[in-house]
Amino acid sequence: VRGAPLIGATAAYGIYLAYRELKDKSRIQEEANKLKNTRPTAINLFWAVDRMVSKLNSNKTIKYNKDVLLEEAKKICKEDIEKCKKIGQNGLSLIKKVASKKSEVNILTHCNAGWLATVDWGTATAPIYYARDNNINVHVWVDETRPRNQGAALTSYELNNEGIKNTIITDNSAGLLMQRGKIDLCIVGADRVTKNGHVANKIGTFLKAVIAKEFNVPFYVAIPTNTIDWKISDYKDIIIEERDPCELSKLKGLDENNNLKTINIYPKGSKIYNPSFDITPNKFVDALITEKGIVKASSDEIMKLNNE
Amino acid sequence: VRGAPLIGATAAYGIYLAYRELKDKSRIQEEANKLKNTRPTAINLFWAVDRMVSKLNSNKTIKYNKDVLLEEAKKICKEDIEKCKKIGQNGLSLIKKVASKKSEVNILTHCNAGWLATVDWGTATAPIYYARDNNINVHVWVDETRPRNQGAALTSYELNNEGIKNTIITDNSAGLLMQRGKIDLCIVGADRVTKNGHVANKIGTFLKAVIAKEFNVPFYVAIPTNTIDWKISDYKDIIIEERDPCELSKLKGLDENNNLKTINIYPKGSKIYNPSFDITPNKFVDALITEKGIVKASSDEIMKLNNE
Repeated sequence: VRGAPLIGATAAYGIYLAYRELKDKSRIQEEANKLKNTRPTAINLFWAVDRMVSKLNSNKTIKYNKDVLLEEAKKICKEDIEKCKKIGQNGLSLIKKVASKKSEVNILTHCNAGWLATVDWGTATAPIYYARDNNINVHVWVDETRPRNQGAALTSYELNNEGIKNTIITDNSAGLLMQRGKIDLCIVGADRVTKNGHVANKIGTFLKAVIAKEFNVPFYVAIPTNTIDWKISDYKDIIIEERDPCELSKLKGLDENNNLKTINIYPKGSKIYNPSFDITPNKFVDALITEKGIVKASSDEIMKLNNE
Repeated sequence: VRGAPLIGATAAYGIYLAYRELKDKSRIQEEANKLKNTRPTAINLFWAVDRMVSKLNSNKTIKYNKDVLLEEAKKICKEDIEKCKKIGQNGLSLIKKVASKKSEVNILTHCNAGWLATVDWGTATAPIYYARDNNINVHVWVDETRPRNQGAALTSYELNNEGIKNTIITDNSAGLLMQRGKIDLCIVGADRVTKNGHVANKIGTFLKAVIAKEFNVPFYVAIPTNTIDWKISDYKDIIIEERDPCELSKLKGLDENNNLKTINIYPKGSKIYNPSFDITPNKFVDALITEKGIVKASSDEIMKLNNE
């Protein structure tokens, strides 16, 4: 499972399944910790697990608790869809603004923050889908997103399915494209946003935000508010997941006979470092697009969202 | 053939071989144009071809001209080696400065501007080789450099061969590394530098220069002076080569039986855009390291190098 919101939704069902098997509230915390320890960066995982565990009531029957957990997991999924739709509706206004001045709106996105990363609609993609539904002529530049190529493999696939024009580019290309005026705005998702607006997202996001600033291209981060970490403001407190070096050197794809093959593309013995996320400081983020509205990436504005 | 200086050196021999076959000065211009039309961005190609053609003398015998051309091609190669060595000696001072304050100097490079891109020594790598020879503890972060992965496949291979510590990273990683203070300086090569210091180099260079500026990490461009285009100052006048989309979607590597295989890693029907170079405006370049010395990337300073 990948994609911060989808990781959360899946973990919710994980708690339900664990309880169904163990039938014992006292043993759930251990299972909750197991789930939490699977990934360090996306906060939605911790949020969903804690929310599920908090629903357990020792004074009630196992049957009652099982039903409550199942309902809660379903509710988390339903809410995720609703949040994404609202993100789409809210983000639409930003795309409309560009569309009022241009015949085609060119959007850059990084990694996959689409329906393949959420229960439905996606975060970064939702405003794009709403733009399409509002007959706005959009074209998406899709960052390949090495090492796992989620942009190419997932986002482009998703956009193809939605009938939205898109072009895959290497992660290296946005500088040239912005220099040539080919990108009107950027929208990305996030794995965690600090309470003052620093954004942890797929490695490479930071470089895009910095080049966007250089060219005054608006850089937006689309998130449900449960992606906000209300506890921290120093981005150094976010643990950045470091993954297997093989993600860079070994690639899977189809050979000429349409068989799935794995090949090694690096010299033998070369050392590899593979951090999976980076952190974009709030000064490079023009706004957060949330289900509760569009806010600046600052403590004051983000605090207004903290009314659950 | 790849690598701006090596393309120049090879084209020089191309003119010699063309003359040896055609034995007719009047027909050489057509062959020269053929060679020039093979690649649009690297200026060393045009420089070498023009230099070779200018040596032909209609008043002399074919034998004489043949000998002159062969000597000139050899001379271009010899000069290339000498220039790279001087770049190394000059660039060494910049690495020494960091080494005086730190036990390990961490250098970021993009693509391959090593001995695999020149006749020997390389441009960006020459200062690194001189640093090693001066017992400076260097470690190189090697950008993978999509789509062709010249960093991973060539630079890391080269550095492994030279016994220089190096780590391959995705092109997305430098932001996080700089944020964590893991990069002390950047050195890249170039395919063309305008007379006022704008740098055309492998796609992605620009993003690295912009993030380096953000963190006050010095960004150096190592070039022989024949990489300077004395005619242009507007970087929009540099033609950026656009290459086959397959460079992104189709990858070659070794399968589990060590057989060379090609696989497709993209969804069917996805559109791809593949520009091969980008242009880093001079304000992001801290200095040019040339065989004639280190100069700022400005018209005044570059003009001082124009004394051939």
